[in-house]
Amino acid sequence: MPRVVVHVMPKPEILDPQGKAVAGALPRLGFDGISSVRQGKRFELEVDGTVDEAALARIREAAETLLSNPVIEDVVAIDVADEAERGEA
Amino acid sequence: MPRVVVHVMPKPEILDPQGKAVAGALPRLGFDGISSVRQGKRFELEVDGTVDEAALARIREAAETLLSNPVIEDVVAIDVADEAERGEA
Repeated sequence: MPRVVVHVMPKPEILDPQGKAVAGALPRLGFDGISSVRQGKRFELEVDGTVDEAALARIREAAETLLSNPVIEDVVAIDVADEAERGEA
Repeated sequence: MPRVVVHVMPKPEILDPQGKAVAGALPRLGFDGISSVRQGKRFELEVDGTVDEAALARIREAAETLLSNPVIEDVVAIDVADEAERGEA
């Protein structure tokens, strides 16, 4: 079953308290060299059937209306992934 | 400044109430054809200096201890991205 991954991040001009908290915690825990952190969301959608242009267009619409809050978030990427790609890291 | 993106997802055997809620809302809002949704996190880290093997190893350690909860989450990918890649979608 094809999988589509939707990446959502807070808009650059929006404060990101979660990311700030992580950025503050990293040096306290001994991880230096990271100057800023922003935290967003990653959605993995299992799609019935094939992912064609029409399906991707509808997924983009869903991503921009339901999966993200367009006032404060951007959909930064929509990737079509295969089942096999999961767990690559 | 190089950017490293860390992708964290709930482990497959862990219930994901946020993803379930999204999956339930999609058909109500007219988006059919998506059989399941899982919601994870995406962290964008701005790294000082270059991202070499040693830096990536430390980022992986931070990802697996601080950015994710290893009891319920997996670090599914760590990507090195360039500033230019942001906003590709």
